[in-house]
Amino acid sequence: MAVSLEFDPKHKRVIVSEPESVSSLVNGYYGHMHKGIISLFPEEALYLMDIRNARCHDMAGNEYKFNDIAAAFESRKQMARYFTYKDWRDRGMIARQVSEICEKFGRNSMKKYPGGKFEMNRFAMQGRFYPDDLWTVIDEEFIGKELYDSQWFGQFGSYKAEQRGKLSKLDVYETLFLMRHCGLHLQNAKEADVIKFAKRQHSDFLHMYDVYEDWRLRGFVLKTGFKFGTHFRIYFPGASPARSNDEWIHSRHVVHVFPRSSKMLISEWARAIRVAHSVKKTFILAIPGEKKKKKESKHALHTNLDFLLYHRHKGGIENPKEGKPKYLMFSLSEEEYIGGEELADAIEECKRIGLELLLAISDRETSVTYYLIKRIELPGSKYEYYEIEWEQP
Amino acid sequence: MAVSLEFDPKHKRVIVSEPESVSSLVNGYYGHMHKGIISLFPEEALYLMDIRNARCHDMAGNEYKFNDIAAAFESRKQMARYFTYKDWRDRGMIARQVSEICEKFGRNSMKKYPGGKFEMNRFAMQGRFYPDDLWTVIDEEFIGKELYDSQWFGQFGSYKAEQRGKLSKLDVYETLFLMRHCGLHLQNAKEADVIKFAKRQHSDFLHMYDVYEDWRLRGFVLKTGFKFGTHFRIYFPGASPARSNDEWIHSRHVVHVFPRSSKMLISEWARAIRVAHSVKKTFILAIPGEKKKKKESKHALHTNLDFLLYHRHKGGIENPKEGKPKYLMFSLSEEEYIGGEELADAIEECKRIGLELLLAISDRETSVTYYLIKRIELPGSKYEYYEIEWEQP
Repeated sequence: MAVSLEFDPKHKRVIVSEPESVSSLVNGYYGHMHKGIISLFPEEALYLMDIRNARCHDMAGNEYKFNDIAAAFESRKQMARYFTYKDWRDRGMIARQVSEICEKFGRNSMKKYPGGKFEMNRFAMQGRFYPDDLWTVIDEEFIGKELYDSQWFGQFGSYKAEQRGKLSKLDVYETLFLMRHCGLHLQNAKEADVIKFAKRQHSDFLHMYDVYEDWRLRGFVLKTGFKFGTHFRIYFPGASPARSNDEWIHSRHVVHVFPRSSKMLISEWARAIRVAHSVKKTFILAIPGEKKKKKESKHALHTNLDFLLYHRHKGGIENPKEGKPKYLMFSLSEEEYIGGEELADAIEECKRIGLELLLAISDRETSVTYYLIKRIELPGSKYEYYEIEWEQP
Repeated sequence: MAVSLEFDPKHKRVIVSEPESVSSLVNGYYGHMHKGIISLFPEEALYLMDIRNARCHDMAGNEYKFNDIAAAFESRKQMARYFTYKDWRDRGMIARQVSEICEKFGRNSMKKYPGGKFEMNRFAMQGRFYPDDLWTVIDEEFIGKELYDSQWFGQFGSYKAEQRGKLSKLDVYETLFLMRHCGLHLQNAKEADVIKFAKRQHSDFLHMYDVYEDWRLRGFVLKTGFKFGTHFRIYFPGASPARSNDEWIHSRHVVHVFPRSSKMLISEWARAIRVAHSVKKTFILAIPGEKKKKKESKHALHTNLDFLLYHRHKGGIENPKEGKPKYLMFSLSEEEYIGGEELADAIEECKRIGLELLLAISDRETSVTYYLIKRIELPGSKYEYYEIEWEQP
């Protein structure tokens, strides 16, 4: 039998009082039960009308359709929230309102990365800077080869054929790093010129460089991520371009830089993750800029996120009666913009509450893609890094 | 024996007069020979110094290194041009200067797409628009199902489970199209409101819609390309969501919209093509906006492109003596911006000269990726569309 919902237009409430409907909803963990009556949250009412064939009437017997109830509860990004809620429910799992959070769950985790240290002697080296293209070329064969072999700076010779040619070509991140830390002098530019020309091309250049420098100083090797659709690819400390048995070393991580102040279309953001995924790399999101130190307030359990998600558990599903939620859902849609600051705040909220952050993106066809965000601990760094994994929950 | 180059700083010229050097260069199709002396173009001189171990001196016996010669011939995007030139030469093929173009080559081609026509009766339909999320929901089951089954408008029921639910959800392109062409009325918005809210999200919305409408009116079906990292995926005329033998129909083409007035980082542009390639879709670039009708001038053979490329031919290579060039190279680097207008102009130049356009993108490590651009003939359309293929020449 179809569930029957009662809408009270005056108090803006959808309730269920008919006994058979009540018991079928209680078992599905919908709404709040009080004295035998269930009060539903808007998404729950919409879902029951959409999928469970629920009919909704007011006391006077007027029928309300999906759009009528949605109009009554109009809210920001209402459909993005609804479609992602629906998808979680359609997968057979439980989603509840974030207003129910009343404890810290301690279910978030952290990825530990190795710590290293950059070590190289300063020595005299000279290059010419090409301001239009942001490359530096070093004529001196011995120096170029040493930079390349010892720390994998620049491209000596030709790409994948180091023996072909004797020049070394540095990209603009390598150029600035070697100027600051290893004594590189340019015939035709000072440090400020390099920065000026790079910023003309890329207003976010210094944020990109900050990330490059942060990992380099911890012993990681960063090279262009162009082939993998990201800003950098990363090798763990100790990597070098030298190949054993003629095998090319493959990076396993790529980094995308997303400054706090910048905004990006969700579809563009997802595209970057998709390329990394298609080439089996771990996608690291860098949010450069100093971490804000927020005081832990009495509202520590408040969140702007969208839903509290219960996941699967030993062949069954987690539920509010016997277990804890696992994720906080951030509901988004394909055509929306997300800001670096906004994402950093969402991650911070999850950390406080002790749950993992799950981004749920509804595309224009209402198909939902999930990305799980895990914090990275990079010893000694003051910036924030996250691994982003594509999830099929 | 190493090639020996002579630099004349006063006339800014690099020549080769030593007989053994001359004959080895003539066979490699370098420079211009006049009275037994070869004059080299800057990229040629740099290449010979970089790869062929050439030494360069002036009359006074001073030696010039790579950077010295590059400095003498300083030019716009000099290294992007050099690295792409080098890569073509490294692959064993010949690249020459575009100043040598003196005929129309008639070697460009065109992809013909089928022509169709959109046909659907106007009928009364109502929906509610969600301005924050840009979706429209239609409550009426019969109408939503008809729109979905007959023309694949919206998502009826659930994604990949049409039987689940009775609502129809239209995206904003479908919403505007159905308002304009099929009599859709929204309870809470006029056409101008839909456009206003869509433009707030996406300043290029109307360009995107123009492309959507152009293909739809020719009978193609367009749905979101989110999963493939592009704006739309396209099905050829006659496609429907109905599956035979429970098999999902797969699109083979995706469309990315690149308005004339917009600019995009080469790395972001390449990322979009890369996703399409990884899922084996043909990538179509749309440059919306009316084609400019340029008069064919007396300078019809002039071009701003970078090199004239000879390709492979029957196990050997094409060369200027016995054959014609095949491509015009547009040399780019990863960190550069490209504009829609600039790309459209490059394509137009190639069309005039009768060669295929090959984009050559040097990444920060000087590894070069090639994309071949082919014009699409879409019968009846006034816009420009191109297939972009990743090439390994």
